[in-house]
Amino acid sequence: MHKKYIFTNVIGMFVFNEHFNLLDKKMFINSEQYEDKGEIEEEFLRRYKNLQKPGGGDLYRVLGFFKKKEYFKGFYEGNLRMTKEAIKASVKDDLLIIQTIGSIKEIDKSINILINRVREWYAFYNPEFEHSLQNQEKFIELVLRRSKKELLKEILVKENESMGAELSKENLEPIMSLSEEVSGLYDLRKRQEDYLERLMKGVCPNVLAITGATLGAKLIEQAGGLKQLMLFPASTIQLLGAEKALFRHMKTKSRAPKYGFLHEHPLIARNPKELHGKIARALADKINIAVKIDYFRGEFIGDRLLKEVEEKFK
Amino acid sequence: MHKKYIFTNVIGMFVFNEHFNLLDKKMFINSEQYEDKGEIEEEFLRRYKNLQKPGGGDLYRVLGFFKKKEYFKGFYEGNLRMTKEAIKASVKDDLLIIQTIGSIKEIDKSINILINRVREWYAFYNPEFEHSLQNQEKFIELVLRRSKKELLKEILVKENESMGAELSKENLEPIMSLSEEVSGLYDLRKRQEDYLERLMKGVCPNVLAITGATLGAKLIEQAGGLKQLMLFPASTIQLLGAEKALFRHMKTKSRAPKYGFLHEHPLIARNPKELHGKIARALADKINIAVKIDYFRGEFIGDRLLKEVEEKFK
Repeated sequence: MHKKYIFTNVIGMFVFNEHFNLLDKKMFINSEQYEDKGEIEEEFLRRYKNLQKPGGGDLYRVLGFFKKKEYFKGFYEGNLRMTKEAIKASVKDDLLIIQTIGSIKEIDKSINILINRVREWYAFYNPEFEHSLQNQEKFIELVLRRSKKELLKEILVKENESMGAELSKENLEPIMSLSEEVSGLYDLRKRQEDYLERLMKGVCPNVLAITGATLGAKLIEQAGGLKQLMLFPASTIQLLGAEKALFRHMKTKSRAPKYGFLHEHPLIARNPKELHGKIARALADKINIAVKIDYFRGEFIGDRLLKEVEEKFK
Repeated sequence: MHKKYIFTNVIGMFVFNEHFNLLDKKMFINSEQYEDKGEIEEEFLRRYKNLQKPGGGDLYRVLGFFKKKEYFKGFYEGNLRMTKEAIKASVKDDLLIIQTIGSIKEIDKSINILINRVREWYAFYNPEFEHSLQNQEKFIELVLRRSKKELLKEILVKENESMGAELSKENLEPIMSLSEEVSGLYDLRKRQEDYLERLMKGVCPNVLAITGATLGAKLIEQAGGLKQLMLFPASTIQLLGAEKALFRHMKTKSRAPKYGFLHEHPLIARNPKELHGKIARALADKINIAVKIDYFRGEFIGDRLLKEVEEKFK
C-alpha cells in the first residue's frame, strides 16, 4: 500500500499522496483551529490509512510544496497572529508583581520629594510643630486634620509665641492641597501593597510566607521574574540587591557584602549584628526551596520553612 | 543747667541725671511698646528739659548701669521676642513665590516618575494605544475616561487583533488608581500655577508682564529673592539658570552660554536661532528695569517694556 503524508504548519493541515500531490487539506482560519489541531489530525487519521509524518527527503519535498506564492500571505498572517497571541499570553502574574513593586518604589520616591517641600513650606507657618515631629506620614495626617492652634497646644507652645508667620487662607491653601496629594499617595501605596500581597498569594505563596510582600517582590523584580529567581542558587539570592557592593568587593577587595534586599527581613533586624550574615544565608536557602515549589505549583510549606529559620536563631 | 541722658534698649526707655543715676523709666512689656518708642520718647522730651543721647564716655557709663543682674532676664526675653518677630516678619511674598515654583518643579518631577510607570504597566493591557499617543497629560485623561475598546477604535485597531493581555478588573484597578493620582497631580500643578501668578501680580507685576509666572519665579528662586534679583546686573539675569554651562566655559573655554532660564521665553522660541542671544540680552535688560520698579513699588509699565523688545525683533 502506498504511503501518505500528513503535515501541519501555521496555515493548515495537509495530506499528500506518495507523489507529494495534495490529497486533502484543512486551512486554519483562526488560532483556535490551530490550537485544536489534535482533533483535526485524528479526523484525518481515521479517514486515510497509512498516514505518516514526513522526515528527511520526504520532508524536504513536502516543504517545497509551500514555496508557491499563494501561501505567502497565509504564512505572514498566521505567524503574525501567533506572535500577537504569544505576546498576549506572556503577561504573567509575575510581570504584574514586577510592575507593582516598581510602582510602590516610585510612589515612595514621589512622596519623599513632595513631603520635603510640604515641610519646608509649612515651616513658614508653624515651625515649632514642623520641628517637633519626625514621622512623615503622621505629620501629613496631623497637618491636614488639625489647626495650627491645636498643634501648638500639643507641643505646649503658646500661639502668640510661635515664630510662624500668619498666612492668609489663600496662602495656606496651596500647602494644604499639596499635603492632600501626598496623603493620597500614601493611601495609594497601601492599596498597592495589599494588591501585591494578593498577587503573590496566587503566584508564590511559599516565597510570600518567608519574605513578606515587598521583600519577595523586590527579589522577583531584581531576578527579572519568578522563573529566573527559581534558577538562581541560594548564594545569589542572598546577595540580590547588593550588586554594587559585590562588584566593589570584586574590584577593590573591600569587604564582601553579606546580604542585599534581605537586610529588610524582620528576622535580621531583631537579631544581633554578628548573626546577620548567617541568618541571611539561612533565609536565602529557604527562599531557594520556596521559589522552586512555587514555580512548579507544589504544596504550601512556606510557614514551616520560615519557622525552621526562626527556631535556629532563637 | 545739668545734663540729662535718655537711653533706649529692648527692655525699656531710661532717663539718667548728670551722675548717671536713674531719674525715670518706662519698661516695654511687649513689642508693640518697643515699636511705639518714638511716642514715649516725645513724652520724656516734654517732661525733662535738656535731655540728650549719651555718646563716648557717657554712653559707656550708661551701659555700665545695665550690668546689674536684675536686667539680664529682661534682655534675654526682649531679644528673644524681637528675634521671633523678625523671623515671623521675614516670610515675605517672594519667599512664597520661591516655595511655589519649587513645589511646581517637584510636582513635575513626580508626574514624570509616575507616568512612565503607568505607561509601561498599561502597555501590557493596551500596547497599541500606549504607543500611539506621546502627549502625557492627554494620555492619562483618555486612559481614565475611555475603555480599551473605544481607544483601539480611535486608532483603527480591532479589539481582537490587539496584542494587549486581558487584565481582570482587579489587575486593572491599580493601574487606574495610579493614573488617577497622576491626574490629581496635574490638577494641583495647574492650581499652583494660578496661585503663583496671583502672588506675582502682587509682588512683581512688571516682571510678571515680561516673563510670565513660571519663568519669572525661576529667576527669583535662583537669585534667592526679589531683592537679590534686583541687585543683579542685566548680564547676570541673562545667564541665571546657565551656571553649569558658564562655569564649564570659564574652566575649559567651551562656548559661552547665551541664556539660562530665558530660553523658556516665548519670544525666543518663535525667532530664528541666530537672534536668540540678542533677544535674551534685550529681555534681561527689561527684566532688570522691571524688577527695580517692582522692588520699589513703582508704577506698572511691564507691558510697555515687553512691547519694546517685541517690536525690536519683529
